[in-house]
Amino acid sequence: MAPVSIVNVTVLQKPVSIPGLMCPFISIQIVATGICGTDDHVLKGSFPNMDYPVIPGHEGAGIVESIGEGVTCVKPGDKVIPLCLPQCGECSSCLNPDTNCCLKTHLYESQNLMPDKTSRFTCKGKQIHHFLWISTFSEYTVMPDSAIARIDDDAPLDKVCLFGCGFSTGYGAAINTAKVKPGSTCAIFGLGGVGLSVVIGCKAAGASRIIGIDINKDKFTKARDLGATECINPQDFKKPIQEVLVEMTGHGVDYSFEVIGRVDTMAAALASCHLSSGTCVMVGAPPLGSQISFDPMLLFTGRTWKGSFIGGWKTKDSIPKLVSGYMEKKFNPDVLITHTLPFDKINEGFELLHSGKR
Amino acid sequence: MAPVSIVNVTVLQKPVSIPGLMCPFISIQIVATGICGTDDHVLKGSFPNMDYPVIPGHEGAGIVESIGEGVTCVKPGDKVIPLCLPQCGECSSCLNPDTNCCLKTHLYESQNLMPDKTSRFTCKGKQIHHFLWISTFSEYTVMPDSAIARIDDDAPLDKVCLFGCGFSTGYGAAINTAKVKPGSTCAIFGLGGVGLSVVIGCKAAGASRIIGIDINKDKFTKARDLGATECINPQDFKKPIQEVLVEMTGHGVDYSFEVIGRVDTMAAALASCHLSSGTCVMVGAPPLGSQISFDPMLLFTGRTWKGSFIGGWKTKDSIPKLVSGYMEKKFNPDVLITHTLPFDKINEGFELLHSGKR
Repeated sequence: MAPVSIVNVTVLQKPVSIPGLMCPFISIQIVATGICGTDDHVLKGSFPNMDYPVIPGHEGAGIVESIGEGVTCVKPGDKVIPLCLPQCGECSSCLNPDTNCCLKTHLYESQNLMPDKTSRFTCKGKQIHHFLWISTFSEYTVMPDSAIARIDDDAPLDKVCLFGCGFSTGYGAAINTAKVKPGSTCAIFGLGGVGLSVVIGCKAAGASRIIGIDINKDKFTKARDLGATECINPQDFKKPIQEVLVEMTGHGVDYSFEVIGRVDTMAAALASCHLSSGTCVMVGAPPLGSQISFDPMLLFTGRTWKGSFIGGWKTKDSIPKLVSGYMEKKFNPDVLITHTLPFDKINEGFELLHSGKR
Repeated sequence: MAPVSIVNVTVLQKPVSIPGLMCPFISIQIVATGICGTDDHVLKGSFPNMDYPVIPGHEGAGIVESIGEGVTCVKPGDKVIPLCLPQCGECSSCLNPDTNCCLKTHLYESQNLMPDKTSRFTCKGKQIHHFLWISTFSEYTVMPDSAIARIDDDAPLDKVCLFGCGFSTGYGAAINTAKVKPGSTCAIFGLGGVGLSVVIGCKAAGASRIIGIDINKDKFTKARDLGATECINPQDFKKPIQEVLVEMTGHGVDYSFEVIGRVDTMAAALASCHLSSGTCVMVGAPPLGSQISFDPMLLFTGRTWKGSFIGGWKTKDSIPKLVSGYMEKKFNPDVLITHTLPFDKINEGFELLHSGKR
């Protein structure tokens, strides 16, 4: 698959909801969108089962422009967050309290077209694919009603767009997936926006020791501001970082989080936690088709290794509540926003992402 | 490391407890012992950090012969089970409700000698090493008081010796580690004694569908008697067993258990469970120095992979309760015992183990 240039999206026609189709659709005006590493995977051709050309973007917030027949969950003018992981509310997964993987997610079938197998985007007469049904790198976009959540009317869209993916993913990894206990010790590998959201989650859960790990020391100040009690750079040590962490903590951390998406740090994060009671959470998306090799003895002794998909949240139920928590100042991810750019400078945003300055 | 012949142990001198040493010791007469795959690893030289010659055996039951100074937990004549995983009751792990890995286990330091660094076994004048502090393949053995549990006076030792490892490991993997929920679907890879104990645990926890998997169909009758609702042989299918299980169940099982100790079946067990809510438990001991390679996407989507070490039990507290449960007929692992042999035919027991007839 060839990478696609993001610049294409600025010339798209405005999509509209089409009444009378099988699934109720909603058209929204995107007001703000974050750039996530997963969008970068799409650009680089490393997102699984992607069809090109495509409009990426999945961390947005906007205002309902129009609704199709059968839509009851929102009305024009509502503030909303598109859901990169839908919640249909009817499938066996939605009815199962132990999973947030609605059977309508891209893990089960392609979301490169709308559920009715149409595209609502064209560019110079050519059909463009959707991404995760929501394609937020567009001034207007369209989605089925299972992929939208109405949020607080007062929510600042340029801030709460982060709740569509990054903040919810990191915060939920600590709160839902790891279920961090008060007084525990946590290690977070990677202090980008999602990693910092894990720090916020660990602090909210009452962890007493939060160790941030990154090879970019510029990230340490913000990590400490958000709750990290220590920050370390693996390049400052001669021995592997997992050995450093075990020595720092006696027997390994209670919870480790890999928020980079590299197989070597995933294995290091596993080895960093307590050999019997430690839990390691995989938060960073692994490279397409990658393989991890590890000694199974690391798990056999009792460690737990688990993945966290959008923080384990049932999105349609939970994201509005997270936004309400933000409005009540329960947590403040505003500091995760490093730059605000106009839409036509979105490629500069990717350059900042690549430079590590986000 | 060269394998050691098990026949050596029949000519050992009787060990005695030695008063006045740092740690209180207990000498017991072994009445019955099971043979576990881990003992076979010792014979084959594939148990980590083993010193030879050694007396293996770690699934025994016996009667206290004498006690050393400072022993208060048992008295001569008590029925006991030696603990291959001790519980000192004082270390940070023993005080932590989330782990059973007492800091005195062999995972932290060698148990090839007693805690005072002496051996209590000699053979023709030569020192023999202990195994996991308990060495049950001996008519008499000695252990520190952290590695012994007093059990019910009426317990039949030739049956409850299984509670020292096999039954507790399998049953606990379902009850403690996976925490199997009522109505769930479980798959058990490997239907030896430990795998069948997992079946018993899944049934006790209320699983509604229990799928036994083995390449030896002779094991299916007993598995069904104990609660397996279906039994399948991977050799009967052209496609990989994980694909078969996903098709059989729609979206994968809720819980899968690997009770063989092979890296290929460990990876298959992971892929067999539900991509978001599934839990895979590693019960079989992995080969020394082995590596598993797997696609991290299998975990990223939300699966949980965890190890179960002696079923997650805090041994000194829990094994007496399990034996009491047996006496109250809450479960009956008697059928796990396939053969009963006199001690001098122990090598025939290993031959039966190798032939798959156990």
